[in-house]
Amino acid sequence: MTATDLENGNNPGRQPSAGEAREFGAGEFGARLRRTRERMAERGLEALLVTNAANMHYLTGYDGWSFYVKQGVVVPADEHMQPFWFGRAMDRSGALLTTWLDPDNVYGYADEYLEMLGGDPMAFLSEHLAERGLSRCRLGVEMDNYWFSARDYLRLGRDMPDAEIVDATNLVNWVRSVKSAQEIQYMREAGRIIEGVMDTAIESIRPGDHERYAAARVLEAQIEGTEHFGGDFPAIMPLMPASRRAAAAHLTFASDRRYQSGDVVLLELAGCRHHYHAPMSRTVYLDTRERVPKRLMHIADTVLEALQSTLDYIGPGRTAADISQYWQECLAGSDVHKPSRLGYAYGMNYVPDWGEHTVSLHPSDQTELEPGMTLHVMPGIWEEALGFECSEPILVTEQGCERFADFPQKLFTL
Amino acid sequence: MTATDLENGNNPGRQPSAGEAREFGAGEFGARLRRTRERMAERGLEALLVTNAANMHYLTGYDGWSFYVKQGVVVPADEHMQPFWFGRAMDRSGALLTTWLDPDNVYGYADEYLEMLGGDPMAFLSEHLAERGLSRCRLGVEMDNYWFSARDYLRLGRDMPDAEIVDATNLVNWVRSVKSAQEIQYMREAGRIIEGVMDTAIESIRPGDHERYAAARVLEAQIEGTEHFGGDFPAIMPLMPASRRAAAAHLTFASDRRYQSGDVVLLELAGCRHHYHAPMSRTVYLDTRERVPKRLMHIADTVLEALQSTLDYIGPGRTAADISQYWQECLAGSDVHKPSRLGYAYGMNYVPDWGEHTVSLHPSDQTELEPGMTLHVMPGIWEEALGFECSEPILVTEQGCERFADFPQKLFTL
Repeated sequence: MTATDLENGNNPGRQPSAGEAREFGAGEFGARLRRTRERMAERGLEALLVTNAANMHYLTGYDGWSFYVKQGVVVPADEHMQPFWFGRAMDRSGALLTTWLDPDNVYGYADEYLEMLGGDPMAFLSEHLAERGLSRCRLGVEMDNYWFSARDYLRLGRDMPDAEIVDATNLVNWVRSVKSAQEIQYMREAGRIIEGVMDTAIESIRPGDHERYAAARVLEAQIEGTEHFGGDFPAIMPLMPASRRAAAAHLTFASDRRYQSGDVVLLELAGCRHHYHAPMSRTVYLDTRERVPKRLMHIADTVLEALQSTLDYIGPGRTAADISQYWQECLAGSDVHKPSRLGYAYGMNYVPDWGEHTVSLHPSDQTELEPGMTLHVMPGIWEEALGFECSEPILVTEQGCERFADFPQKLFTL
Repeated sequence: MTATDLENGNNPGRQPSAGEAREFGAGEFGARLRRTRERMAERGLEALLVTNAANMHYLTGYDGWSFYVKQGVVVPADEHMQPFWFGRAMDRSGALLTTWLDPDNVYGYADEYLEMLGGDPMAFLSEHLAERGLSRCRLGVEMDNYWFSARDYLRLGRDMPDAEIVDATNLVNWVRSVKSAQEIQYMREAGRIIEGVMDTAIESIRPGDHERYAAARVLEAQIEGTEHFGGDFPAIMPLMPASRRAAAAHLTFASDRRYQSGDVVLLELAGCRHHYHAPMSRTVYLDTRERVPKRLMHIADTVLEALQSTLDYIGPGRTAADISQYWQECLAGSDVHKPSRLGYAYGMNYVPDWGEHTVSLHPSDQTELEPGMTLHVMPGIWEEALGFECSEPILVTEQGCERFADFPQKLFTL
């Protein structure tokens, strides 16, 4: 059976069958699981409940838009036990198709367990933990995660009175923070995609045209990818506020508005390949270079110079705090201020965030950078009346850093 | 100052300024707040912490892609006190631009409070609750919500030892369940959008073409909307599994695969207008009608007849359980089985779900339907080897129900 057979749906069996389970092969998943269990051992965990959708995908290949109901992957510390997946019964087929797990480690619950029907999916989970002798274990859970609620936590405690439930938020995220060769390959491909996406965006934004048509072109380009490989939907929808809205960080397009001459348009977009991102920001001023407001040009000049210096400074052995401090020194003496963090780790993810919630380029983060870490260096400036963004997705290498995308760093004008 | 001024960014002031705050006017927001406070009074709540992004938008107009960090709206029971918004400092501008709240009720926290930097955003929140004399109150929180974590709950309890924190999950969702005239108008516009989106999808799916190009066309059409009004990104990305993947409910396109003759393609898509949805499903068989597998045609015929009967049966005064039972009676005697719920309430939403988590068309739900409720009647069938979907977004009316979209109910073939 070949990858092409699988792609074409010719696989008569069920495992391993689709998506990443095919792409990565058992070796990649084996390494991920091993590194996860090492961290579990450091924490004395006998089992880990993984509910973060990206972490579930990372460990098993699971790839369905089903995180809006309760689901998860349980990783027993015992390396002779395979992890198991649980979720809604109708999503079990998707788990069989996309994960490398044996079918008898894929459990689907009936709708009677659904939270929105008054059910208790944690009761289903605790039954399966009990079946595996994990009722009395020290169990790590992701206490700060979108897909594991406060109610889930209280119910799990009630359903497993003999277990010790401890906080293991971001344990798998930290395993993810150093990328493998295959992951870096996907992120390079995402870099090719964002180059095309950003080109499309800048060409589509014209005075008199509806904002929504530019946004539609952007999403189209994100999904189409390149001639040679496909894109995917990003974990953050296109952020492209214009005019007054360009003073804010996380607004998107205004569906019924038309661009006007003199608009500032912020573009925070990503290329995405098999859920691996290359996020990038640029800023467009909708008039000629001569008419750019002085303040905007000043911010742009200041940020672009500081960004270039900071990229040159990034490398292994330096800490996140070092990078942040260096950046602030570049700005020192100017009247441009950046009180928020300079950037963050990112990689494979689902909505609502491509950030990994591990490394932050901030004075308080003493993490030492390692080759294989990937950062979005994001010096966004949002003042009262306008904003400016120019950011780069980078890979920490043995020597310094590599930019995933090759795109001009400048303020774009008509 | 006119709506056009605001759209064009000519508003020199800050409030109320953009998005829905403009569209709905104070009357709509006033009614929403009043109905929310009525439900709070029934529960004896002195304040309500709203973290669900759709609920935040519903009550204040807030419209930013910032729910990946901690934020919320606090509604005091006291009608003389305005609600307040809190979130990350860089998102405060977006809150000032999109909500009707006075600027001194919009609080932004520095990055030092960020969860991912080891901070505690709940400490920031509890300080502001204390400032308003709400330290000792009976406080409702959304215990089962994506944007309020187990850790948040524990921290809030620690930071507010004199408060009584109780579960108010879905309180605002239930207020949302009956739509206003303006909301129904948006949903009718979303209905026009989904008609075009589904047309585009069915025309774009052809043997030999890459799945990603069809998906790109779909997203493009979702954002473009119609000639007269714009679309928006839906709360669920296009679900369009093909071939073997069409046996699963919540998979999306395969980025590098090409459609083949004989593929079954499931399409669960939505039109979206100002975050109000019109979700709809259809199924395409990629060959001529004569070559449709017998089993698939049998499922289609059975489901389509039962769906039509059930739509005729839906009306006010009947319960969700009645509808579910009627549907099951339509299937009785056939060999087509639908163990999962038949549908659910939906409306305005953000990722990851357009469902409202209130009414479910399931035997256990005794909710009586009321005019103004909106349901996605979704008889999806997923068998071992294939699936079939044909669903309708509907409005419960005084007489029965109205379909939001006018689109043929059939199995589509080449």
